[in-house]
Amino acid sequence: MQIALKERDFMKTNLGRSNMNTINIRRHPDSGYDAWLAFAGIDKDGTIYSHTLPESIYTFGRDPLLDTARDELKCALKLLTGKMPKVVDSPAKSGSILLEILAGPVRTDSFVPEEEWNKLGSEGYIIKYCNTASGKNLLITAKTGAGVLYGVYALLRLVQCGTLTQDIYLLENPVTGLRMLNHWDNLDGKIERGYAGSSIFFEDNKFIMDLSRIRDYARLMASIGLNAVVMNNVNVHKTETNLITSAFLPKVAKVAEIFRKYGIKTFLSINYCSTMEIGKLDTADPLDEGVKSWWANKAKEIFETIPDFGGFLVKADSEFRPGPFTYGRNHAEGANMLAAALEPFGGLVIWRCFVYNCTQDWRDRVTDRANAAYDNFMPLDGLFADNVLLQIKSGPMDFQVREPVSPLLGGLKKTNFVLEFQITQEYTGQQRHLCYLAPLWKDVFDFDTYRDGAGSTIASLLSGAAASGRLSGITAVANIGNDMNWTGHDLAQANFYCYGRLAWNPGLSSEEIAKEWVIQTFGCNPHLLDTITGMLLESHHIYESYTSPLGIGWMVNPNQHYGPNVDGYEYSAWGTYHRADHEGLGVDRTVAAGTGYAGRYNKPVSELYENPKTCPEELLLFFHRVLYKQKLKSGKTLIQHIYDSHFEGTGKAEQLVIKWSGMKDLLPPQTFERVLNRLAEQAKHSKEWCDVVNSYFYRKSGIPDNKGRQIY
Amino acid sequence: MQIALKERDFMKTNLGRSNMNTINIRRHPDSGYDAWLAFAGIDKDGTIYSHTLPESIYTFGRDPLLDTARDELKCALKLLTGKMPKVVDSPAKSGSILLEILAGPVRTDSFVPEEEWNKLGSEGYIIKYCNTASGKNLLITAKTGAGVLYGVYALLRLVQCGTLTQDIYLLENPVTGLRMLNHWDNLDGKIERGYAGSSIFFEDNKFIMDLSRIRDYARLMASIGLNAVVMNNVNVHKTETNLITSAFLPKVAKVAEIFRKYGIKTFLSINYCSTMEIGKLDTADPLDEGVKSWWANKAKEIFETIPDFGGFLVKADSEFRPGPFTYGRNHAEGANMLAAALEPFGGLVIWRCFVYNCTQDWRDRVTDRANAAYDNFMPLDGLFADNVLLQIKSGPMDFQVREPVSPLLGGLKKTNFVLEFQITQEYTGQQRHLCYLAPLWKDVFDFDTYRDGAGSTIASLLSGAAASGRLSGITAVANIGNDMNWTGHDLAQANFYCYGRLAWNPGLSSEEIAKEWVIQTFGCNPHLLDTITGMLLESHHIYESYTSPLGIGWMVNPNQHYGPNVDGYEYSAWGTYHRADHEGLGVDRTVAAGTGYAGRYNKPVSELYENPKTCPEELLLFFHRVLYKQKLKSGKTLIQHIYDSHFEGTGKAEQLVIKWSGMKDLLPPQTFERVLNRLAEQAKHSKEWCDVVNSYFYRKSGIPDNKGRQIY
Repeated sequence: MQIALKERDFMKTNLGRSNMNTINIRRHPDSGYDAWLAFAGIDKDGTIYSHTLPESIYTFGRDPLLDTARDELKCALKLLTGKMPKVVDSPAKSGSILLEILAGPVRTDSFVPEEEWNKLGSEGYIIKYCNTASGKNLLITAKTGAGVLYGVYALLRLVQCGTLTQDIYLLENPVTGLRMLNHWDNLDGKIERGYAGSSIFFEDNKFIMDLSRIRDYARLMASIGLNAVVMNNVNVHKTETNLITSAFLPKVAKVAEIFRKYGIKTFLSINYCSTMEIGKLDTADPLDEGVKSWWANKAKEIFETIPDFGGFLVKADSEFRPGPFTYGRNHAEGANMLAAALEPFGGLVIWRCFVYNCTQDWRDRVTDRANAAYDNFMPLDGLFADNVLLQIKSGPMDFQVREPVSPLLGGLKKTNFVLEFQITQEYTGQQRHLCYLAPLWKDVFDFDTYRDGAGSTIASLLSGAAASGRLSGITAVANIGNDMNWTGHDLAQANFYCYGRLAWNPGLSSEEIAKEWVIQTFGCNPHLLDTITGMLLESHHIYESYTSPLGIGWMVNPNQHYGPNVDGYEYSAWGTYHRADHEGLGVDRTVAAGTGYAGRYNKPVSELYENPKTCPEELLLFFHRVLYKQKLKSGKTLIQHIYDSHFEGTGKAEQLVIKWSGMKDLLPPQTFERVLNRLAEQAKHSKEWCDVVNSYFYRKSGIPDNKGRQIY
Repeated sequence: MQIALKERDFMKTNLGRSNMNTINIRRHPDSGYDAWLAFAGIDKDGTIYSHTLPESIYTFGRDPLLDTARDELKCALKLLTGKMPKVVDSPAKSGSILLEILAGPVRTDSFVPEEEWNKLGSEGYIIKYCNTASGKNLLITAKTGAGVLYGVYALLRLVQCGTLTQDIYLLENPVTGLRMLNHWDNLDGKIERGYAGSSIFFEDNKFIMDLSRIRDYARLMASIGLNAVVMNNVNVHKTETNLITSAFLPKVAKVAEIFRKYGIKTFLSINYCSTMEIGKLDTADPLDEGVKSWWANKAKEIFETIPDFGGFLVKADSEFRPGPFTYGRNHAEGANMLAAALEPFGGLVIWRCFVYNCTQDWRDRVTDRANAAYDNFMPLDGLFADNVLLQIKSGPMDFQVREPVSPLLGGLKKTNFVLEFQITQEYTGQQRHLCYLAPLWKDVFDFDTYRDGAGSTIASLLSGAAASGRLSGITAVANIGNDMNWTGHDLAQANFYCYGRLAWNPGLSSEEIAKEWVIQTFGCNPHLLDTITGMLLESHHIYESYTSPLGIGWMVNPNQHYGPNVDGYEYSAWGTYHRADHEGLGVDRTVAAGTGYAGRYNKPVSELYENPKTCPEELLLFFHRVLYKQKLKSGKTLIQHIYDSHFEGTGKAEQLVIKWSGMKDLLPPQTFERVLNRLAEQAKHSKEWCDVVNSYFYRKSGIPDNKGRQIY
């Protein structure tokens, strides 16, 4: 913590002077601060771009974001090539980059035929070479400044990854219009589930206003296509309730101004009871006229201060937060009241579906938390206003290392939704363990819900909504804090990065994203590229191996959620049980004999899960109770699988240290040490996980390891 | 919490005005505040004393404590009888109470023969009737004002309990000279392991200086014979380290002044590293001359401010507290350095023996926390200065509901010691469960260590030390806070009370102390007296029944220590394991095959514990690993004993509610409700304990309850 503070002081000194009106980007070598925007050049001989990149920039169109795009490109090219490109008034002969916002399909110096034009969304871009009157130039075309900005970052990515060929043709649109980050930052500076220092926004119940840090954060976001941010925690406590009052709104506006320059809209989490806590009303009933008009006035006040304000994120009737249930109203009534207040200004209501009974009796085997979001929201499908989006966690429980995809995502047909991930590694090693999350998220995007027949993957539901003009979105809980390297673990930056990339294009593979990230962050030495990419790609599987087995989840220390505690949530009120006894473990969630959760899916998925023979094995214990002696597909018994996977996971965690150590000469020394320390902790802690889990099940089952390894 | 605050405000208003120079005692009916000093009269018809009690008081001798004794007696008699007794200049005819401090064996108006005189210790007293020149009077004779004060409280106790007969003859001395309370209060007002509100001393890093509350606390202490208090937590944090500086010492002196009026010496817990944290030294090495002289000067400064300051309580090299180990010195060297500084002023060093490895590997079955205090301190026996006392917890672990007596108590032969109990119910239900601790403590006092052959009970070691002029003492962690009723649970006052009574006279029975307390607190209605006494006497057994079985301890939620969590400490670093597997549980602490702990006792105790056949059954799992199917003395298997005792304990907890409910008409309404609420919570929570523990062992053993009751 002390180190983090010192780092922040350093930041203030070194970045505080930068002029916010122009982009003044400097490198902070070996600190992790530059992340994937170091533009450091890729091989060990220095930059290799100077002779291949255009040396002038020409812009066409007017939009503040076009200026941002131009300035970002200028600075990046300067860093990459050592030469500051010229900004020219007209396209130079050959060798210019043209950044253009087009109002229609055709223009003199480039050519965008109608078919192509029609494919371009409002945030999309085209990158191609074109022969203009003045020669062959590189063209980034878009309908908006935002599109050009995303095109610029794409171009820089192509350049660094060496994939900018002479016949390049790239037309990209994001899969969905809302690509968001949720900050669980509190005004006291603490971040709920934050593992990389304190908030970059707040401290001691005030805004920090370290605008250069926020700008650099906005750059990171925009560079991977993110366009929305919620600054404060979904759990809106007393002080944070005041964010929508004049006490804080001017500061929110200042921060929003920074984000706006990078095409990012600012949202706030609100307290559903604001009418009572900061208004003078004695109710928060959504059907009360006083409540409605209070929120209408409040919306007006906010939009007068921040004209492009995004809207509200709301956690209501969830984990002791207030909500419409208090007044006998349902979630649609609650959300629509707020939506009506925001609608005149184009604001959105994002309403979380993380609603379940968190005071469950552990003895109760009928109630199933996995059913909760589905059962709470499915009956309301079609009842929500057009500017409401339901924010649905990717899984039915809570961001475990392995969960099925939430059936609510494939259930709702007439309701806008936002898919929610968690980048911050609450249950996946808290940025002390390496756990690259792209493979997990890919599984979600690729999951076929069969909502509209085969092929109704989550990704296609998102793109389908976009195509039909419906609102949709993707969000994730951010993993950054004021640690100098943003994410605590340097390699956890890959999660921030891959989240943005997938939120733009879920079709990318985990591997190609990892490679992009490694090259931009560490350079493209082939050994380093292969090794780090390999480490990232196997990391989720490794983490899963030595933690809770086969989709059952939890088994962590309560509250903090770090470290093994097999019974930690077994006799608690949180609805999270494994039901292990001396014969077996797992939760029967079948329709036939269990909680019925499997039946919440569309066919044939429901049938797949219902049957232990067809249920994907990595989710076996989530859906079925299995005896220790029962054989898995591998031919191993369940208990032997538990032993083996834990020993193997630990062994692989030790290998990560060795792999990293082998790159000492290829990495900056402090970066090398920082990551080495984390990997060493992971290796040690994976042993603790392995020993606790194996000992627990050995003591319970009495069945020895058939390889005779040490179990306690 | 809010209620507690309101109660404090009430206190300030109502008591703040009382003049501290005279004793102004008022009743606060039905609030619990008056505790056992309500002097409310004992039967439902009102007072019954007016015609039997002397109506005047005559004092002989000079001592501020004699004044306190006289004033206390006056006020108490006024409350009891409705009439204010006269204070007379010479013994009235018949019917006076004579309070006298004698300088020698004989005096005119009474007669104390030499033999009797010689039996009287410095704090002892004699109560008897005597025929003086002016008639038959009631006499309280002592060698000091403190003795008279204790005699006055004894007299009032006798009066209320109806045991003041005409032929009364009572000569009492305390078993030991130091009868202390340890407060674990921090300067921010929080009490570590406090369950009755916040500190009465501190708030917001300041002294509260609510002197009337402290006075009333001192009265409670003195009335049961306690004569020493440590105001602050043994874990001395940053702010508390400054208590021995001029920033706080004047306030300490003010509080000490209140305590002094009631014969109570004030001590402070100190930070072993004070030389570095508040001094300007760069070491705390006890052999360093700079360190020695810093402490010598510090002692001088303290005693100049508080001439009768008691001394220091020190937790060193324990649970991350600093200590002499850092400098390669042992505890004797550490303690003796402080002792040398305090010695010129008569100050004491009380050095805690709660020293163990709290970062143990749970896989390690050789290291045994139970051995730690013994192994750390036995080699140092005889090396401590005369004004050092080792403070030894009653058991080897940490105030569990059942533990053997610490073998260190019967091991040390040449070292002064203080026996430490815990009144605050950290592991015994946190003052939400009823758990009268006298029976537990009686077991400790009566435990025969065989240190000097048979009959070397802990009580006799204490009294033997006193008889031979050696320092010894008894201390306990206080259970009071600023809750209006002091202890949260009204019935937890009985633990405060019985602690003092046993620290004075360990020969008293749990039952007679309970009865004394009930009569003084609630009156002597026979049904009420029998019922509450019965509830108190069975409460420890009930609590033990539904919590961890047969002496194994722990099985609580980590950190907070409330509520069941069988594996809560099983895979942790705290050295507290039950080692349950599918066949059995318990820790083998035998010499033959276990950790050797049983061998730390003197023979024949060591042999008794070594053998599972002779080991007391309530400690069986502390000393031995036992299989679930193994038969106990009752003929039941271990697993059946676990099931039965838990179901029975819960049933009895439910009975407590019924018993209390039956006394509604005999109790003040608010008192009735307060206790009823706690008992209801206990009954509910005992069910949680029962179900979690039984389910845990059923799931692990697979052995069903032979009575077929519901286990989950």
